[in-house]
Amino acid sequence: MKKFEEKTLLSQTLYEGRIINLDLEEVLLPNGNKSKREIVRHPGAVAVIPITVDGKVVMVEQYRKALERAIVEIPAGKLERGEEPELTARRELEEETGYECKQLTHLISFYTSPGFADEIVHLYVAEGLSKKDHKLDLDEDEFVEVLELTVEEALEYIQEQRIFDAKTAYAIQYLQLKRQMDQNNG
Amino acid sequence: MKKFEEKTLLSQTLYEGRIINLDLEEVLLPNGNKSKREIVRHPGAVAVIPITVDGKVVMVEQYRKALERAIVEIPAGKLERGEEPELTARRELEEETGYECKQLTHLISFYTSPGFADEIVHLYVAEGLSKKDHKLDLDEDEFVEVLELTVEEALEYIQEQRIFDAKTAYAIQYLQLKRQMDQNNG
Repeated sequence: MKKFEEKTLLSQTLYEGRIINLDLEEVLLPNGNKSKREIVRHPGAVAVIPITVDGKVVMVEQYRKALERAIVEIPAGKLERGEEPELTARRELEEETGYECKQLTHLISFYTSPGFADEIVHLYVAEGLSKKDHKLDLDEDEFVEVLELTVEEALEYIQEQRIFDAKTAYAIQYLQLKRQMDQNNG
Repeated sequence: MKKFEEKTLLSQTLYEGRIINLDLEEVLLPNGNKSKREIVRHPGAVAVIPITVDGKVVMVEQYRKALERAIVEIPAGKLERGEEPELTARRELEEETGYECKQLTHLISFYTSPGFADEIVHLYVAEGLSKKDHKLDLDEDEFVEVLELTVEEALEYIQEQRIFDAKTAYAIQYLQLKRQMDQNNG
């Protein structure tokens, strides 16, 4: 038995949507009591840190309806059914920024909100960027503006809460600490 | 007008739950077309980095039904209606770890999943910890195990993906980078 396992007694899908589903589960707690868990099912996502030849990170500013404002993020997108995360990463990078990449490396994966959602984000770093000459190939309901920041600028944006998207801050901080470790070991 | 604003044409609450609500909104896009947005409404949360007198970070391991496993996180909890985040932070720290703190400092706030949810996490660091002598005062459906890690161990846990909760990794990385900056400036 898993640690503190909560066995599912009943699972009910309350909503099946375009991006998320909502399940309500009745669970058996470790002490024998029952409780309910509301769980958002998400297909998972990729996020990409695109690094230009002069060392800048390519980001996108886009409107997030949940927050009622535009925010700065690294390029990201949800997994399509059955699609390899690496393919999604290349596609989202190209669609949202117009860049293709030579090397795409998986850094780490993490869960954004394990208290109520199963969303996992697979984080990649994209290097060897080259601009394709056509315009952005966005989803029909997607509007973004591309910007490029040095890692130092991005870290300042986090401090100043001009970047307050968790996956983006996670990504930039992870990259910075990884570089320091690589330097110390190299 | 806000950048790339999506005006709400229709908003419908599909589910009102114990922790989250689910809204479906019809929006007017910047190009005049319409689209739908599924938005999870969350009351917001606090997360606390509790640092012991010998410099360790207190963490909790708990079962997350959404992931069907127990995971290691910093203490956290959702805001109660009308409750000041600082009060929630002190309460969750005490309930989940048995520690009281002398100093509680707000570090930063961030959004965990702006693509589909409005959850904000207010991150605090708690110092001057002292153990209260009673046992943990958990919610009736909450089971946790307390552990203490050095910051270096926590960073290793992130690298090894033994910590893969975004807010916890964010918090530890933020703390580490902040300390480096404070050292460089001090």
